[in-house]
Amino acid sequence: MVILGCGFGGLAAAKTFAGEDVRVTLIDRENHHLFQPLLYQVATAGLASVAIAAPIRHIFRRQRNVTTLLAEARAVDLAGKRVVLDDGAALAYDYLIVATGATHSYFGHDEWARFAPGLKTLDDAMEIRRQILLAYERAERATDPAAQRRLLDFVVVGGGATGVELAGTLAEIARHTLRDEFRRIDSRTAHVTLIEATRRVLPTYPEELSEKARRQLERLGVEVRTETRVTRIDDDGVWLGDQRLAAGTVVWAAGIAASPLARTLGVPLDRAGRVAVGPDLSVPDHPHAFVIGDLATVASGGKPVPGIAPAAKQMGRRAARNILARIAGRPGRAFRYIDYGSLATIGRNSGIAVIGPFRFWGLPAWLFWLFVHIFFLIGFRNRLMVFADWAWSYLTFARVARIVMTGESHKASE
Amino acid sequence: MVILGCGFGGLAAAKTFAGEDVRVTLIDRENHHLFQPLLYQVATAGLASVAIAAPIRHIFRRQRNVTTLLAEARAVDLAGKRVVLDDGAALAYDYLIVATGATHSYFGHDEWARFAPGLKTLDDAMEIRRQILLAYERAERATDPAAQRRLLDFVVVGGGATGVELAGTLAEIARHTLRDEFRRIDSRTAHVTLIEATRRVLPTYPEELSEKARRQLERLGVEVRTETRVTRIDDDGVWLGDQRLAAGTVVWAAGIAASPLARTLGVPLDRAGRVAVGPDLSVPDHPHAFVIGDLATVASGGKPVPGIAPAAKQMGRRAARNILARIAGRPGRAFRYIDYGSLATIGRNSGIAVIGPFRFWGLPAWLFWLFVHIFFLIGFRNRLMVFADWAWSYLTFARVARIVMTGESHKASE
Repeated sequence: MVILGCGFGGLAAAKTFAGEDVRVTLIDRENHHLFQPLLYQVATAGLASVAIAAPIRHIFRRQRNVTTLLAEARAVDLAGKRVVLDDGAALAYDYLIVATGATHSYFGHDEWARFAPGLKTLDDAMEIRRQILLAYERAERATDPAAQRRLLDFVVVGGGATGVELAGTLAEIARHTLRDEFRRIDSRTAHVTLIEATRRVLPTYPEELSEKARRQLERLGVEVRTETRVTRIDDDGVWLGDQRLAAGTVVWAAGIAASPLARTLGVPLDRAGRVAVGPDLSVPDHPHAFVIGDLATVASGGKPVPGIAPAAKQMGRRAARNILARIAGRPGRAFRYIDYGSLATIGRNSGIAVIGPFRFWGLPAWLFWLFVHIFFLIGFRNRLMVFADWAWSYLTFARVARIVMTGESHKASE
Repeated sequence: MVILGCGFGGLAAAKTFAGEDVRVTLIDRENHHLFQPLLYQVATAGLASVAIAAPIRHIFRRQRNVTTLLAEARAVDLAGKRVVLDDGAALAYDYLIVATGATHSYFGHDEWARFAPGLKTLDDAMEIRRQILLAYERAERATDPAAQRRLLDFVVVGGGATGVELAGTLAEIARHTLRDEFRRIDSRTAHVTLIEATRRVLPTYPEELSEKARRQLERLGVEVRTETRVTRIDDDGVWLGDQRLAAGTVVWAAGIAASPLARTLGVPLDRAGRVAVGPDLSVPDHPHAFVIGDLATVASGGKPVPGIAPAAKQMGRRAARNILARIAGRPGRAFRYIDYGSLATIGRNSGIAVIGPFRFWGLPAWLFWLFVHIFFLIGFRNRLMVFADWAWSYLTFARVARIVMTGESHKASE
């Protein structure tokens, strides 16, 4: 059995095989499982990388039927039932779970990546952190007032959960965290603009909560521009049609695209590059291969399953159980998504939440968010650490992970 | 007043000016002060970077007479009393403290740097951590037994404190931390060799303690080779004269060289590139310029002052006080080094210590080392965090910071 990818889906699948008489090879190109919902906290120096990442082989050290390999899958040969790895080696499987997820997409403008990093991996988060903190450092050194102004202008593109969280945190950093630390600039004059193409931020939430979120962002000083489309990004900022918005730092939180591995399957993909799997999550006509998480598109109860962590976990467990059923000669079951609700945070003390029939916002939503995220973090130690870091930042407004590396290797990538 | 470098020396000097009627510009090319004695813990995944680094401007946020600039000094013009920065800008000073320290030196073989990273900055530590952890990952994937064997061979060059600490920790990682996590290799078969050119490890310590250290290392499984000189380093390992020692990972902990900034001063330097300062730590014939820390060579009580953190701190305070005296029209005082002793750790539960007339080793030395290092760490929060991390590792043998980034930008540098 081979599992490709150890995000929420792959991890849940591998754990489901615990104690079963199967041998699992778990392949990921990183050595760690990442708690992605808190990645924006790493990007904004609120948490250290280690707080939200756990070494995959450490997670499975006692589950002896799992072999972890640090490798990247280049192609899947469904007919030959094998996976081709980055070094050209082929790995045969009897059952396969593909869980390589999604990455950010620049809608065909890959040249924007240079100027507006996206946020999917720890590497991305460290790069965004570096750009944010160095913008302030450069502003303190700048002698030209126009250059100084531009360095203190931040733009976040994309008003989904990640964009809203980033924009809110950036505003807080300017107003609180860095307040007393500069002598030549006033960090509070930094300006954060959040750009969203559709009519409202957090478009997957009820309209009423989008409005709450917008007002909470504005209270933090974020300028929210909806129904606004970015047409170009360069070294000086972004273009909105004819209008130029100067900015020293642009962060991309807009499009997502399915992992390119899907294209090697040779099966039909949807517009976003995802695999339309059968009700049991297997690939049509390939009953030994399953696709789960952000890479799969499937409906449950007549509605498309959203691309969020709880859905990926549920799919992982279902795919693993269907494989065990198949091995035992029993039929698999159709995937049924259980919606536990959605949550987003906007800044210190504010957020929005939809839990079943309940909608709430502000401090209660934020506290609920805090509780849920700490609870679901991998590992007891990480939970304690994140809780301690947050308690500390909450009390002091400090951000704990403001270390960036400015060595030659990093300068070279500028 | 300009201070170049915010290591232990520069930091102590800047703090001494607190509350005084002077204006200090503090320049460092990193945004953080680094607690270097624990850097090997970051390199061996025992601590996260943030635990041993503190943002410089955060340290000085309440000391309003300090302006922090993230910049690199390229040259000092002693006659013109100005410093030239990396962007070509000149910064005039009335008094100057140069505290840019030392870096590692490959004794004229800079080409070895590619194969054997040294350990001076957080960047270095992350690179070493990456190489160590990826060596095990590659060994698990390797199909050729010879290649697998080579990947599990580690060489540390240099038997000073850093080399001894690295070698001891590497042996512990192999024996304890990674023990249950691989399926195709046994991490306990990893082999660590420590190479030292002189007759004994920790050569600045009393002979008796060097012997204790050697025995403690050997008990951990480290092969200690003294009176052994590395003549070449390449992709496959090291050469010791005619003898080849294959190794997948080589870490450099041997030579140190003074910061190249010293060469721009136009004053005589010693063989290691350091400035021979006057008794008051000022540059001969340049009473407005002081050099402190690892970049300075000075005697106290007839003995050369060692290049260690407590000495740098004491010099920083003395230089600052001498400047304040000079401003007040009083004469400065000669620097007197107070030796509080030296300490090195070898692994879990063992170490050696010389404190005044006392010499001790084993568990007492280790406990003392633990206490001293936590006590001197910058910041209450960091102390708590490091203590928690260590308590956790001690109880579980886990290492908390095993996250490496394997993204494209890092692969490119391989």
